[in-house]
Amino acid sequence: MAEGVTPRNEDYSRWYTDVIQMAELADYAPVRGCMVIRPYGYALWENIQGALDRRFKDTGHVNAYFPLFIPMSFFEKEAEHVEGFSPELAIVTIGGGEKLEEPLAIRPTSETVIGHMYSQWVKSYRDLPILINQWANVVRWEMRTRLFLRTTEFLWQEGHTAHATSEEAVEETLRMLDVYTDFAENEAAIPVIPGRKSDTERFAGAINSYSIEAMMGDKRALQSGTTHYMGQNFAKAFDIQFLDQNNELQHVWTTSWGVSTRMIGAIIMAHGDDKGLVLPPRLAPIQVIIVPISKTDEERAATMQAADRIFTQLKAAGIRVKLDDRTEVTPGFKFNDWEMRGVPIRMEIGPKDVANQSVVLARRDIPGRDGKTFVGWSDLETRIPELLAEIQQSLFDKALAFRLANTHEVETYEEFKAAVDDGFALAWWCGSGDCDNAIKSETKATNRCIPMDQPGGEGKCIYCGKPAKEKAIFGKAY
Amino acid sequence: MAEGVTPRNEDYSRWYTDVIQMAELADYAPVRGCMVIRPYGYALWENIQGALDRRFKDTGHVNAYFPLFIPMSFFEKEAEHVEGFSPELAIVTIGGGEKLEEPLAIRPTSETVIGHMYSQWVKSYRDLPILINQWANVVRWEMRTRLFLRTTEFLWQEGHTAHATSEEAVEETLRMLDVYTDFAENEAAIPVIPGRKSDTERFAGAINSYSIEAMMGDKRALQSGTTHYMGQNFAKAFDIQFLDQNNELQHVWTTSWGVSTRMIGAIIMAHGDDKGLVLPPRLAPIQVIIVPISKTDEERAATMQAADRIFTQLKAAGIRVKLDDRTEVTPGFKFNDWEMRGVPIRMEIGPKDVANQSVVLARRDIPGRDGKTFVGWSDLETRIPELLAEIQQSLFDKALAFRLANTHEVETYEEFKAAVDDGFALAWWCGSGDCDNAIKSETKATNRCIPMDQPGGEGKCIYCGKPAKEKAIFGKAY
Repeated sequence: MAEGVTPRNEDYSRWYTDVIQMAELADYAPVRGCMVIRPYGYALWENIQGALDRRFKDTGHVNAYFPLFIPMSFFEKEAEHVEGFSPELAIVTIGGGEKLEEPLAIRPTSETVIGHMYSQWVKSYRDLPILINQWANVVRWEMRTRLFLRTTEFLWQEGHTAHATSEEAVEETLRMLDVYTDFAENEAAIPVIPGRKSDTERFAGAINSYSIEAMMGDKRALQSGTTHYMGQNFAKAFDIQFLDQNNELQHVWTTSWGVSTRMIGAIIMAHGDDKGLVLPPRLAPIQVIIVPISKTDEERAATMQAADRIFTQLKAAGIRVKLDDRTEVTPGFKFNDWEMRGVPIRMEIGPKDVANQSVVLARRDIPGRDGKTFVGWSDLETRIPELLAEIQQSLFDKALAFRLANTHEVETYEEFKAAVDDGFALAWWCGSGDCDNAIKSETKATNRCIPMDQPGGEGKCIYCGKPAKEKAIFGKAY
Repeated sequence: MAEGVTPRNEDYSRWYTDVIQMAELADYAPVRGCMVIRPYGYALWENIQGALDRRFKDTGHVNAYFPLFIPMSFFEKEAEHVEGFSPELAIVTIGGGEKLEEPLAIRPTSETVIGHMYSQWVKSYRDLPILINQWANVVRWEMRTRLFLRTTEFLWQEGHTAHATSEEAVEETLRMLDVYTDFAENEAAIPVIPGRKSDTERFAGAINSYSIEAMMGDKRALQSGTTHYMGQNFAKAFDIQFLDQNNELQHVWTTSWGVSTRMIGAIIMAHGDDKGLVLPPRLAPIQVIIVPISKTDEERAATMQAADRIFTQLKAAGIRVKLDDRTEVTPGFKFNDWEMRGVPIRMEIGPKDVANQSVVLARRDIPGRDGKTFVGWSDLETRIPELLAEIQQSLFDKALAFRLANTHEVETYEEFKAAVDDGFALAWWCGSGDCDNAIKSETKATNRCIPMDQPGGEGKCIYCGKPAKEKAIFGKAY
């Protein structure tokens, strides 16, 4: 039997890294704070990429590629941006054996260099909007790192758009927040709270930032995607101007938005259990694992023949299926192994199943007998897609129920403090960064976002008691 | 009318950069030697990636991601490798505001760091083969750079495999050479010569290197993909060992292979003409451009309605089609614009065409009347895929005829010198690096490869006159 992971209630953080390493999603690189994304983890990332990229293209975006290196002087053009990012930069000072005249930063995000290029490409209102996304690696010199959640180098997509009007740019910022919400909920099966960031949590250089916030299995928050409305801040810093329809020179309005490999961390922690990963069918690299079971050579021939045929049939039907034909390990070992890797459906085929022309389907998300059904061979092609959809929905429902059960509407600061020790607090908030900071230092909880979905009316700020028109979500965050 | 590119016979190199900039494939980045791949160029790269990635997966490979940063000490573990790559390294010396204890190189290629990881992952023969590919950016500090062909940072894929036996590793090296040949010929419509590299052109650290060599429109050679058999060089340097079936400890045998954004340069120069790009239909981001033509408002309504319907129909049929509905430019401007961008088929729809329920299809690769046909609306869905396939084949045939016409089998060094001034020379070659070097310094031509396809028999080395068993291809190269 495969060695198990540390139980979540014993040490959640240890459980997390156990799952990543034992499911072979990622490994530590020989450079501090960096990771290697192993094939199984990368296949998951490819599915995330595919699902996002399709949505980006459906909303009119195109991909491009901008350079890894950014001249140091570029950062200084936007005051908040340089303050936010300089402490995290990795800097190249030597190239081709010689000291560089101007050191080059490795991009931590690409607003600056993309702004520089847009200033050259945009001349007239006819050149707008520019709707470009980039899939790239970025580097931020982080103090404490954790696989997928916070690594020195990570993979992400960063969208950067430029518009003729403020309204259009705001609309784009909110459209992409919707795209991220749709992706998280319908592909990753993670319910999220889309909302505006408070000033203390804004992106360095943005007018407004937005995020989708998810609750992990330990009731902590994970920011899973962000979109930013930059106003004309970067347009002015990089001189991105266009002639409008009245032939007047105007600065463009820009946005940026990103989702990273951190999403893999979200999937692990939103759905995983003490047996390991539980992957949402729509993103799972392997949706169905076939395990033939036999004792004699004769049985092996029969079950393998059936398994082979079913494998070929399901593959042709577009299902991501794998046949585990290893002979050196037992079926029990295989069961644990694929449970660890979070494969949504296990198909068992033994001699009796062959005789009955059926198989056993076992759901990863429902342990034991309750998750098992017998299905006839001829029904597999219709039943498996249905079952995958059921599992997808069930993971979402379970995560949503968990979040709702652990989100507390609080009226007093005492209630608030208890709430953020055990999930999210939803509370009236006056809008002041001082309250955010005081709450953070007293409780370690941060203002995650001001949900787009507001109750209306007014109340008193949970911290200072002053009049408040919005409720905010607070929680301890990754 | 759109401004044209510099004619090829006036200045080929200028023609090349004109095409790239005017077709908006790429632009110069604000950092020396780096480029920005613009959306149209990146869409071409995405199609290249798709076609290669499919082939990699069909041959059993999986993708993964390894870190951008490589400790400097790793390079020193393989003697030839450090000698080959150190002069080209970009080096990070500062991270998070502090001087690093060990400087980090930006990967110029990843044999070292991947070798390090494989040494941790491989234990038994059951863990082999490892068949991993990575899509990534790499950095080589180049002296003279040229868009797509040689840039400080470029995008590529690098496959890195580890095997239990030498035979298997050699087989993999040659299999991937076949995959590259198949890709170049059947997707990019570029005929290539697959062959072994001579020792002077070997990859730093390889036992044998192989390449596919293509002839560009100016008769110069472009190495368009390489595969390397490393023997146990990297396995010994990075201690990648496994227990074989007899329980004995052995070093693995490794390979690596790569194709980069340089392939875009190959496509530009293999097919382009004085009107700009000519893209092979299988990789073209836009396969059909629809240009409605009208004078009156009434005509415009009718042609746009037809154009819209055809656009929707072709798109649903899986054809990459675009409708140019701009009103601020003339049809003539559009014709030139899309010719510049190399779109294989232009579809014109005027009022007469609407009346006849037909369209004009104009081939990018055959100028003027000869390339035009009238096609009825009801035939478009069958005719367009056929026409795209005809164009694809025709581009390949034309490039092959050009290469054959400019490849000279030579018997004397005088003939050789004349030949490499005007294309490729195919000549008997003794296998000596001294001859390669002498030829290079006297003629500027290099030994491109020793073609896999050999005539057999023997002859005398074109340079030294000693007995030779193989013929090699020589040419001036990019």
